[in-house]
Amino acid sequence: METETMSQIITKDQLLKHWQGHRNLSRRTLEKFPEKELFEFSIGGMRSYADLVKEMLAIAAPSAKGLETGNWEPLEEEKKDLMTKEDLLKAWDEATDQINSSWPNIPMEVFQQRVVAFGQYESSGYELVAYAIENEVHHRGQGYVYLRSLGIEPPFFWERE
Amino acid sequence: METETMSQIITKDQLLKHWQGHRNLSRRTLEKFPEKELFEFSIGGMRSYADLVKEMLAIAAPSAKGLETGNWEPLEEEKKDLMTKEDLLKAWDEATDQINSSWPNIPMEVFQQRVVAFGQYESSGYELVAYAIENEVHHRGQGYVYLRSLGIEPPFFWERE
Repeated sequence: METETMSQIITKDQLLKHWQGHRNLSRRTLEKFPEKELFEFSIGGMRSYADLVKEMLAIAAPSAKGLETGNWEPLEEEKKDLMTKEDLLKAWDEATDQINSSWPNIPMEVFQQRVVAFGQYESSGYELVAYAIENEVHHRGQGYVYLRSLGIEPPFFWERE
Repeated sequence: METETMSQIITKDQLLKHWQGHRNLSRRTLEKFPEKELFEFSIGGMRSYADLVKEMLAIAAPSAKGLETGNWEPLEEEKKDLMTKEDLLKAWDEATDQINSSWPNIPMEVFQQRVVAFGQYESSGYELVAYAIENEVHHRGQGYVYLRSLGIEPPFFWERE
């Protein structure tokens, strides 16, 4: 096992921990937004942070589920039922549990196989997980600008617990 | 070799390609900024995009070099000699070559070993590369808000070539 670990860039357990660490930071970023500005504030014609969070939610748990089962539903970003910060936080925590539940069942070889995520985005399994993480980092970084612009200090980027 | 690849989440070659793909997108984001706004524009008291790019440059190639050699210089983000967009693009391309040159010499086991990057940041090798990539994605996402606020369309997030 030691030899196997040493021959890996990153192990499957480490990747889950890394992903959930980012998701924890994104959750704390979401918490920083005042209710009204979460749904209404934007810069340069961009989406509200609530809408960016809905996109994160549309990608995260469904990606883990798709890698687990090989079955994909179309991407569903609208999520009209999520109307308050509390709704978003609850959906976030459910997604955290769903990812943790799917993860052990994802076959190791899937990370190197081609997947057609959401029935339309072709990549390898590892690229899909990287996309889920990095798309979230990208939009969360934008949320940091929204928060700064509102005079609110965002969480430290490097804190993931 | 096939078996070895299939037991990896991501191979070393794939990680380099992934990193450089992000760096290519960051370079195209830098190119989109008008000269003056690159160094002067900001939102909410944040740094200019030129300063964010200097941070990316301070981390990227020195991280690859440190993983290659085990030797670390202190982080140098100020880079007062980079005074124009052309200076930044030239430094960017030099860093691209430096990373490509260091990469084959990084021992595979380093990714799972503890490193003390820049003499002060303790992590594993894979966490350091992830930090270099994700810190860049984070700040580039902020650059997208700056560009949108300036009425300039940023590059597509998913285009990496």
